[in-house]
Amino acid sequence: MTGVDVGLVPARTGLAYRTVASFIEDRILRGDWAVGARLPSETALAEQLGVNRSTMREAIRVLEQNGLVRRHEGGKRLFVSAPRDADIASRVAAAMVLREMSFFELWEAMLSLEPGLAEGAAGRISADELDAIADNVARTRRALTDERSLTELDIEFHDLVAKASRNRALQLCREPISRLFYPAFLQVFSRLNAGERLIFAHERILAALRAGAASEARAWMDKHIVDFRRGYELASLDIEAPVRMPQA
Amino acid sequence: MTGVDVGLVPARTGLAYRTVASFIEDRILRGDWAVGARLPSETALAEQLGVNRSTMREAIRVLEQNGLVRRHEGGKRLFVSAPRDADIASRVAAAMVLREMSFFELWEAMLSLEPGLAEGAAGRISADELDAIADNVARTRRALTDERSLTELDIEFHDLVAKASRNRALQLCREPISRLFYPAFLQVFSRLNAGERLIFAHERILAALRAGAASEARAWMDKHIVDFRRGYELASLDIEAPVRMPQA
Repeated sequence: MTGVDVGLVPARTGLAYRTVASFIEDRILRGDWAVGARLPSETALAEQLGVNRSTMREAIRVLEQNGLVRRHEGGKRLFVSAPRDADIASRVAAAMVLREMSFFELWEAMLSLEPGLAEGAAGRISADELDAIADNVARTRRALTDERSLTELDIEFHDLVAKASRNRALQLCREPISRLFYPAFLQVFSRLNAGERLIFAHERILAALRAGAASEARAWMDKHIVDFRRGYELASLDIEAPVRMPQA
Repeated sequence: MTGVDVGLVPARTGLAYRTVASFIEDRILRGDWAVGARLPSETALAEQLGVNRSTMREAIRVLEQNGLVRRHEGGKRLFVSAPRDADIASRVAAAMVLREMSFFELWEAMLSLEPGLAEGAAGRISADELDAIADNVARTRRALTDERSLTELDIEFHDLVAKASRNRALQLCREPISRLFYPAFLQVFSRLNAGERLIFAHERILAALRAGAASEARAWMDKHIVDFRRGYELASLDIEAPVRMPQA
């Protein structure tokens, strides 16, 4: 772990802590301060940047809040870090709920994302990942009448395919949508006998992944996502209604 | 603007301000406190939740930082708000840079996103939006030898198409990728005479949008994004290299 060199001093403003936070964030994003590098202590940073300690404490909190600075468990030392997927997904999902995005918008986004992920996964999936998906499909077959398990297994299936794509940008995109989109399906499963259609599609996607058949994996995922919308409509749910944050 | 009712009191912990911030965030996400509603003052909130004022001030800062609470310009009153796209995009783009995502990952994400956006736009675009895209294409034609303008006009073109899709979930997804992906093209334009290929594709996409031809708009956008990768490779740039934060 290398330390960082502070260098320039930011100008003071009415919102000094934000200026200081932006200054440090810029340094981190430009790569001057690498992920994993240790930051000087709050006191040392405050001295070097010529701001008072409470300002520096606020700035550090902003950076921690944004996942750019982290402490190791129980420690006081600060390290440069990359934001976690889960934290980013929480922020994006919150924005989607508060902007009252509709199930239709999320569905259309999934229709763009999931087939590409399946196509990517077909060329890149490992034997272990194939086993994990096969196991998921077997468990899904045994859970066809249990709506809650079915929803969880469905979410797991799509997560496994997404991870097997090895594309972290697409995964970062789809994570918040997935959190809001798939739980809505508990409602569909509750009203329709949708399990058979679901397992049929999952089995076809698994077979395509196993065969390394990229365009087949894409085509089956595409059909499957189109089917989600049909299920939603057959269950007489309003596709234009705003999505809600699922209760933990 | 309605006020909010505070209700339950959160438990105190070592990180009281985070507990208080989460408590308020949950209320907002559940819709108990609606976007636009006015929050009680810091002092009143601190009293109602039984925490001291400095804890409440920290909690409010976290919520402001996450875009869930906002003050009107120059005002002190707090209002519930939805996070802004631009702020979300900054956080996601930062995560992509710090996780050292490659140009290839971003390109593949764009290959999933942009064709769907063009397809959606074909059925939903307004006359004004068509005019704006036509104007962009005319300006692009006049800027073919000016690499910097060409990059800016290219970014504008794709933003206009994305907005015309009316899908806010897809727009939220693509915004951070767009910020990192398109500026990389200044390098391609600098090395190749890529303007002609670019304007050709943009003109075809515009014609498809004007005709309301969804599958043609999708197909041309798809070809166009595939072409980006080819340009990158022809310019002998490393497609597996991590993307960087563009300098403002």
